[in-house]
Amino acid sequence: MSQPDIDSARLLRRLQCLSRIGREAGGGISRPGFSQAAIDAASYIAAEARDDGLIARTDAGGNLLISPPGPRRYARALLVGSHLDTVVNGGWLDGAYGVVAALEAVRAVCDNHLDLGVDLVAVAFANEEGARFPQAFWGSKVLAGRLGAMTVPPVDYNGGSLREALARSGGDIDALGTAAWAPQSLASYLELHIEQGPVLESSRTPIGIVSAITGRVVLAAEFTGTAAHAGTTPMDQRSDALLGAAHLAVAVSELPGRGLCRVATVGRLESSPGSANTIAGRALVTVDLRDSSEKRLAEAESAVRHRIATIAACLGLAAECRRLAHSQPARTDPALRQSISAAANDLGLSTLELPSGAGHDAQIMAAVTPVGMIFVPSIGGVSHAPDEDTSPADLIAGARVLLGAVVRAGAACGRKERRAVPST
Amino acid sequence: MSQPDIDSARLLRRLQCLSRIGREAGGGISRPGFSQAAIDAASYIAAEARDDGLIARTDAGGNLLISPPGPRRYARALLVGSHLDTVVNGGWLDGAYGVVAALEAVRAVCDNHLDLGVDLVAVAFANEEGARFPQAFWGSKVLAGRLGAMTVPPVDYNGGSLREALARSGGDIDALGTAAWAPQSLASYLELHIEQGPVLESSRTPIGIVSAITGRVVLAAEFTGTAAHAGTTPMDQRSDALLGAAHLAVAVSELPGRGLCRVATVGRLESSPGSANTIAGRALVTVDLRDSSEKRLAEAESAVRHRIATIAACLGLAAECRRLAHSQPARTDPALRQSISAAANDLGLSTLELPSGAGHDAQIMAAVTPVGMIFVPSIGGVSHAPDEDTSPADLIAGARVLLGAVVRAGAACGRKERRAVPST
Repeated sequence: MSQPDIDSARLLRRLQCLSRIGREAGGGISRPGFSQAAIDAASYIAAEARDDGLIARTDAGGNLLISPPGPRRYARALLVGSHLDTVVNGGWLDGAYGVVAALEAVRAVCDNHLDLGVDLVAVAFANEEGARFPQAFWGSKVLAGRLGAMTVPPVDYNGGSLREALARSGGDIDALGTAAWAPQSLASYLELHIEQGPVLESSRTPIGIVSAITGRVVLAAEFTGTAAHAGTTPMDQRSDALLGAAHLAVAVSELPGRGLCRVATVGRLESSPGSANTIAGRALVTVDLRDSSEKRLAEAESAVRHRIATIAACLGLAAECRRLAHSQPARTDPALRQSISAAANDLGLSTLELPSGAGHDAQIMAAVTPVGMIFVPSIGGVSHAPDEDTSPADLIAGARVLLGAVVRAGAACGRKERRAVPST
Repeated sequence: MSQPDIDSARLLRRLQCLSRIGREAGGGISRPGFSQAAIDAASYIAAEARDDGLIARTDAGGNLLISPPGPRRYARALLVGSHLDTVVNGGWLDGAYGVVAALEAVRAVCDNHLDLGVDLVAVAFANEEGARFPQAFWGSKVLAGRLGAMTVPPVDYNGGSLREALARSGGDIDALGTAAWAPQSLASYLELHIEQGPVLESSRTPIGIVSAITGRVVLAAEFTGTAAHAGTTPMDQRSDALLGAAHLAVAVSELPGRGLCRVATVGRLESSPGSANTIAGRALVTVDLRDSSEKRLAEAESAVRHRIATIAACLGLAAECRRLAHSQPARTDPALRQSISAAANDLGLSTLELPSGAGHDAQIMAAVTPVGMIFVPSIGGVSHAPDEDTSPADLIAGARVLLGAVVRAGAACGRKERRAVPST
């Protein structure tokens, strides 16, 4: 078979076109899931796909699915994609890059008449970010059948109905079951994404192979003491809630060094009354813990809860701690990591295995099928911001590795499929 | 001479009447300096003084001065008083108590035809709190001739003119010089005040003798790091401004234990962007340091500045530190402390010497004349809040000690005055 390749000029041109959809005056991009900008972005990609002679359709969950022309040939499909929605005032590559590159991969496989032994489907998942509608990973959860029961009609942060927004996006909230794929119909899922962190850039590595998507626990700790005069209250008669919060922030920063989790962050600390000459009577801290091991994550959460209790006891404070969010870590598939590694090697590109600290649709898909993820460097590690960027060379390299990994993974899946046929 | 006493029922009644001027729906009292409520409070006290047969006048600084009838008899005056303005939503005793008790003292001296050998003047200083017009200690600064040059016309927090507010209060910004007393015309200044802290209550002592009014330095420290993704940024590649602020807050809380100052407080910590999953790129901390020794205060400030630099270097942050406020500590006069102690002893009341952590007009007056301060217990140590309170028995005891101290201090000043006369 001929050596397939992507059209790198077309890849960059499509990314540039997408970057004009939902662009803010300051250069940032706002395409919240189910917004008109997100609909416009999906329409643009669908039109491009049809121009390429491919079939584009929207499922009941609002996901855009792109397939080669003609009927499905195999029982299982290799899905490849990412998402087109963005955070508010985000960057041009988070999500969009993986979708445009997936489209290139499908086009290259078609153009080269490659038979992967599985069907190949590109996907743009709906509302990965949850920027307007807080149902993040909506599209992948629908497709993976992992949405769970909706006990109340889902709404956006302003109370707007998801039902109507989804309908405007071409979906149908009453038919979500039709968008769910049976696990046995999925061969695997591949996603190309910018790293959104500084590791690849600082190690001068063009291709990252994601080892795992880290799980996350977010805790909110609240300390309650006694607001009092900063000048007249002796040190030994204080119940200083802000001091409790500060001790916790320092303790949280020390968790990774103690081997308790990969990264730990206090990103928000609020206290009241917030006056220079008043001891704070109340303080709220968020604790964001991430690790690719569910066990270590649980240990880290337990350590934080223990520390909160210790600090409260030492400082004479009341304390509460509640979970704001929890997502389980997901391992990527060793065979898919090997396919990515081999594809990069063929292209003379060095690779680095690293965990993904950010959440991705692949994390959801991992519950129902093997997943693989490819990262390319983020300049300065910046993401979710207008100056999110990756060099054109790295963008092209990443898309080529994705295509190579698709071909290798598809062939591997196809061999298994063909081997499996006689045994039935 | 007969044993003079205050009218305790009148004292409590006047305090109750004052507590209805500027009262909020929730029970708190708002009489910012130069507000209509502050004017009403001064008018009420002036009317009560005139009913008592005393002379009440307002000086160019807006201070209310109350003297016995008839011409001044001596070259020097013993001033006794406090202030009638409050913070927003403050309590009923902070300031008002010292003014009403001073009025009782003047009345008792007059009624008993006591010749103290110095003139006796009660004073209600204007705008001690600086709640609307930020020129705190305005009245005592005017009277002490310590206002300094006003290079720009003073205004309130909303840009309103002090000139006009002062005129409405009966003052005259163009005649402030006429309100300044020459130091040699002052014998001393006595102030009775609620403690605003928990020390007297927790030691079950009815009378506090203020040893010194602590000096204060307020610093604003700002750390600048790099806002970044909490999931994708490795711990060793972070510049976490909030973590810098937390380390500083912990270090500040340890200063008193290291003997560097009496109390040290971080009352305000702000960070941005303030999101659970974003490392903070910027954090601001206020540091409030108090001590009755200017040397220790300077050492504490130096230690804080050094620690800010160390934290910034360790965490890869930029840091700035600037002074927001500075007031020098003021020692009270040993002879006045002795007068207060003896007066309390005569009444069978136990005393405790303690520093004042809050600022008072006495601190300003200390620059030009010996000062003495008497504290009474604050229930729960609460002040600057609607539930600020002191038991009636303690209020009466404090006013009696003030009168006793006035008589003793006046007599002592008078003896010096009389001794001094032949030598001229």
